[in-house]
Amino acid sequence: MADLQRLSLNQATVQNWSVQQAVEGCVRHGIPSIALWRHKIAEAGLDASVKHVRDAGLHVSSVCRGGMFVAPTTEERRERTIDNFRAVDEAAALQADSLVMVVGASPQVAIADARKMVSDGLAELVPYARKHGVKIGLEPLHPMYAGDRSVLNTIDQSLAMASPYSADEVGLILDTFHFWWDPYAYEQIKRAAGRIFGFHVCDWIVPMPDMLLGRGMMGDGAIDNHGFRMAVEAAGYNGPIEVEIFNQALWNSDGDHVLATVVERFTKLV
Amino acid sequence: MADLQRLSLNQATVQNWSVQQAVEGCVRHGIPSIALWRHKIAEAGLDASVKHVRDAGLHVSSVCRGGMFVAPTTEERRERTIDNFRAVDEAAALQADSLVMVVGASPQVAIADARKMVSDGLAELVPYARKHGVKIGLEPLHPMYAGDRSVLNTIDQSLAMASPYSADEVGLILDTFHFWWDPYAYEQIKRAAGRIFGFHVCDWIVPMPDMLLGRGMMGDGAIDNHGFRMAVEAAGYNGPIEVEIFNQALWNSDGDHVLATVVERFTKLV
Repeated sequence: MADLQRLSLNQATVQNWSVQQAVEGCVRHGIPSIALWRHKIAEAGLDASVKHVRDAGLHVSSVCRGGMFVAPTTEERRERTIDNFRAVDEAAALQADSLVMVVGASPQVAIADARKMVSDGLAELVPYARKHGVKIGLEPLHPMYAGDRSVLNTIDQSLAMASPYSADEVGLILDTFHFWWDPYAYEQIKRAAGRIFGFHVCDWIVPMPDMLLGRGMMGDGAIDNHGFRMAVEAAGYNGPIEVEIFNQALWNSDGDHVLATVVERFTKLV
Repeated sequence: MADLQRLSLNQATVQNWSVQQAVEGCVRHGIPSIALWRHKIAEAGLDASVKHVRDAGLHVSSVCRGGMFVAPTTEERRERTIDNFRAVDEAAALQADSLVMVVGASPQVAIADARKMVSDGLAELVPYARKHGVKIGLEPLHPMYAGDRSVLNTIDQSLAMASPYSADEVGLILDTFHFWWDPYAYEQIKRAAGRIFGFHVCDWIVPMPDMLLGRGMMGDGAIDNHGFRMAVEAAGYNGPIEVEIFNQALWNSDGDHVLATVVERFTKLV
């Protein structure tokens, strides 16, 4: 099925590994791209992280993550903005395809107000990102996270949020975990043509062990990852495909075993 | 805010009570309507259940639930159909405003196939319901249940599913827990005008204690139940408003205390 050359390891899949370990794991398993998380970049240092990926010849599909625009006070929102500027700097240094945005949510902020904070936050961030040559990838998150992680919950809504900006500066990160259930997912992917900046796969397992750390390996659940890959390709996306699996049991197991399984499932099922 | 005359106690809120106890609780707290669950009707007996609600002068806003059309084998689907016919009989005997449908899902059935099974199942059921004067209420469930409980996940999708039938035989049950996150919820409620058969409220608490038994009391979470009540009323729905709260902690507490809180929160916040 999928060509290994399309695979990108999202570092969240091997949460217990450092940047260096994840980079070396990619090299050992023939994975050509990687997506780095900011708390791991902070641990390793930005310069060292850049050096690790360059020396290994890896492509950086994304930096995860900016966003979190939603907070009850102006002061908190100001802090988030400053942190987002730093995220842009990191994505620029790593020459990542895009900076992934998880836009945030708060039980203390009404959802309509929260969505306005996201628009306002983007309006501040995009000019800075443009100046530094960093593309902003809005990731719609599953509706079950609308109360605490993201008020951006469908592809159409994300397209509307991206629409004030040019299609080469603000686009979408499509993760099958978040939209697989959507009865209009395929139509929405078509409408996203030209704005797809990234594509992530994993699986939806039943019963779900945990709302946050209960994602499954491709093939272990209900998601038609291959069907969705065909759809995003038909919509013009041919970039790296990230495997991003938040799963405590996976994190507790051997990283090389995880990567071998990722490679096998990716090439067979995606 | 809301008039107590609009309140209906969905029996799931006091899961440890029998039909008789729930009916008596409604009478004690001045709640004029009730929604009964079929496993509770089975425990009490249908005739006794009918007698309890009639003697108490309660209105039955709904019977919960039919549906579960999705199963891997023809045999299982046949059993579900027969069970759905029984559900119609029960709703008819109780003179319920509608029979609520949770349409089902299965990790063994691809989601597109599952949705076809729902259409097919409805096509078998609606003529029987029509003959017995029972309205079928399709309840879109939160997308987090798409793998195991319901492949009907948005208002628009439910409207499309209802559209082959007349607006007085198949309509929608709108529960704020399931659609509060939807960026297009208000537009969809408008489009549902004329097909709204029921309206349910509860709250979305953060962090959610459990995906199934973690719903909150109105006022304890992120949902603007009042805003949604205004929207469904603007769309022409003026029937009973069910309070339906699946919450293990609530179930473990005193039923009369729960009902007192329901009445207080309903009249203040809905």
